[in-house]
Amino acid sequence: MSRIYNFNAGPAVLPLEVLEEAQRQLIDFNGTGMSLLESSHRSKAYDAVHQEAIANIRELMGVPEDYAVLLLQGGASTQFSMVPMNLLPAGGSADYIDSGSWSHKAVKEAVKVGTVNIIGNTVKDIPTRMPDLETLKFTPGAAYVHLTSNETIAGAQYKSFPKTEAPLVADMSSDILSRPFDVSQFGLIYAGAQKNLGPSGVTLVIVKKDLVANAPESLPTMLRYQTHIDGDSLYNTPPTFGIYILMLVTRWVKAFGKEKLFQQNIDKAAKLYAALDGSNGFFRGTAEKQYRSDMNVTFRICPDGQTPNEDVEKKFIAEATAAGFAGLKGHRSVGGLRASIYNAFPVKGVDDLVAFMKNFQDKNA
Amino acid sequence: MSRIYNFNAGPAVLPLEVLEEAQRQLIDFNGTGMSLLESSHRSKAYDAVHQEAIANIRELMGVPEDYAVLLLQGGASTQFSMVPMNLLPAGGSADYIDSGSWSHKAVKEAVKVGTVNIIGNTVKDIPTRMPDLETLKFTPGAAYVHLTSNETIAGAQYKSFPKTEAPLVADMSSDILSRPFDVSQFGLIYAGAQKNLGPSGVTLVIVKKDLVANAPESLPTMLRYQTHIDGDSLYNTPPTFGIYILMLVTRWVKAFGKEKLFQQNIDKAAKLYAALDGSNGFFRGTAEKQYRSDMNVTFRICPDGQTPNEDVEKKFIAEATAAGFAGLKGHRSVGGLRASIYNAFPVKGVDDLVAFMKNFQDKNA
Repeated sequence: MSRIYNFNAGPAVLPLEVLEEAQRQLIDFNGTGMSLLESSHRSKAYDAVHQEAIANIRELMGVPEDYAVLLLQGGASTQFSMVPMNLLPAGGSADYIDSGSWSHKAVKEAVKVGTVNIIGNTVKDIPTRMPDLETLKFTPGAAYVHLTSNETIAGAQYKSFPKTEAPLVADMSSDILSRPFDVSQFGLIYAGAQKNLGPSGVTLVIVKKDLVANAPESLPTMLRYQTHIDGDSLYNTPPTFGIYILMLVTRWVKAFGKEKLFQQNIDKAAKLYAALDGSNGFFRGTAEKQYRSDMNVTFRICPDGQTPNEDVEKKFIAEATAAGFAGLKGHRSVGGLRASIYNAFPVKGVDDLVAFMKNFQDKNA
Repeated sequence: MSRIYNFNAGPAVLPLEVLEEAQRQLIDFNGTGMSLLESSHRSKAYDAVHQEAIANIRELMGVPEDYAVLLLQGGASTQFSMVPMNLLPAGGSADYIDSGSWSHKAVKEAVKVGTVNIIGNTVKDIPTRMPDLETLKFTPGAAYVHLTSNETIAGAQYKSFPKTEAPLVADMSSDILSRPFDVSQFGLIYAGAQKNLGPSGVTLVIVKKDLVANAPESLPTMLRYQTHIDGDSLYNTPPTFGIYILMLVTRWVKAFGKEKLFQQNIDKAAKLYAALDGSNGFFRGTAEKQYRSDMNVTFRICPDGQTPNEDVEKKFIAEATAAGFAGLKGHRSVGGLRASIYNAFPVKGVDDLVAFMKNFQDKNA
């Protein structure tokens, strides 16, 4: 068996050590005589996993005491609704930065709940980009400001975050734990786990507790953050195995060293962007340079140095796949190519892809 | 390593063959060079898993063509809200059978959406039981009738289902796929997977499509059944690994033979209840005989043949745990003892528990 290079946008590559540990323990978890898949969520064995997952998140992200760390179900798509249902009072409004496919979905759910002010819009911009922070006009009295830190499909990423009077809410699904950030600058952060944190089926929420304490009791119990704060994410049966993998991933990040990991992420992306920029236009990055994502490197192939050529892109994907580089196809809504290089993606995979790209260019330019 | 007997109420015991297969494939799934935990939910490898899971459910439960099979997140607790949000029109009402802790939680969510008629109530009955079907007075014009087929905590189970004019909605979390039932008698069936179908984090919904086609567009997208019908449970990233385990479990049921499994469930429960009834009152079943659950056998220990004794129950649990019988403690809300003996629980585990009980009685009567 040889592991291939997995450039999937999510669910995505996990550290091999995590998979090996999960495999070792799959039938008899820590000598309990049963799999963690079979353990009660009220058992001591599972509780240790649950508490370590939360403690590791707290430690790695420097989560202040007055914030709760929640492990929920439903993905970012459910958060798109939970955020306005909990944070947007009757008659109030919220500011949304509409920067691409994901933030746009968040907007669509928020307008079902209340008034939305779109304070920046780059959904259709080519090259892809994020609205410039200095141009944003925040609405006085808005209940919160919502942004997407990294647009997975567009390959565009905010490199810093705005200072806002209203609580800042961020969908960090595709770049959480990939770089330093200050939790206290945010009111609420959410992220599907399936990119940097673990498998699909787990959603991380970090929320300032006083922000959601007064959400209406009339909300569905499962959609009130307070339910899960009160229950320590054990109000109902949590996705225990997914949380276990998330715990192992956070343990792996601690062992690797988060600063080292963050620097490695910068270096990996820089290598790939340098390969694009040094190709005389054969490979062209689709995002504006200042907003290039360190997680999702999106690009086109322009054999004449000018115009994207879908046939050559198909050929590239076919040959790359055959050579053991999986998941390089761009999202179906935009086409082109995308290399997702999350935390667990190995440096050698980037080096090998760069070599493969040079070789492909030599044969196809 | 020796596997112990796992009487947990959920997450619960899984077939050893399923765990062994998952372990074998954990790092390299079907020769893809990656774990299924890392596979894109849009990949061919995952899609085959997804489609087989749905096809197996359809086959094993005889799901008619005009019903959708959905694999969602959020557990039965989320269904408590989704059902009324999708099925209860403005100004309408729904009939609820309030038979225990779980149905009561369903009621609490439904009253947030509309008018609820409680047409039967046995929440506080001792011995535990279900409302008799022949006494139920259904409300003319009710949007639907909701029941819980098996109350996991009370250990009480409906042995047959009412014929209703309004669509019948059932929470079958703790007895789905444990016995034959006619899907066409129901409008909607839901079940958390973590008892008979797989791990926690996956929720099965079987729904007659025309029943939910007109749910309001104003609902949160993730809470509309139609979203997931349209997207074949791939509207957003599903809990891929949990669905994989569910697929393996349904494959195991097919190989074992569902009729054989259903008969085995009856036989396992009959053995345990016979042990209770043959103990001269030392062990006393807590449910009325006609409503005794085949999945969750609840009982007390009455050393004098009359009165439950918590100290002796604690002793029983401690000695049973030491002897390799795990999870026999009753739910914290009711105390006593509970042996959950779902599909994957082995016959020998029941035989060994019966022997252990006899031995315990000899020493403590």
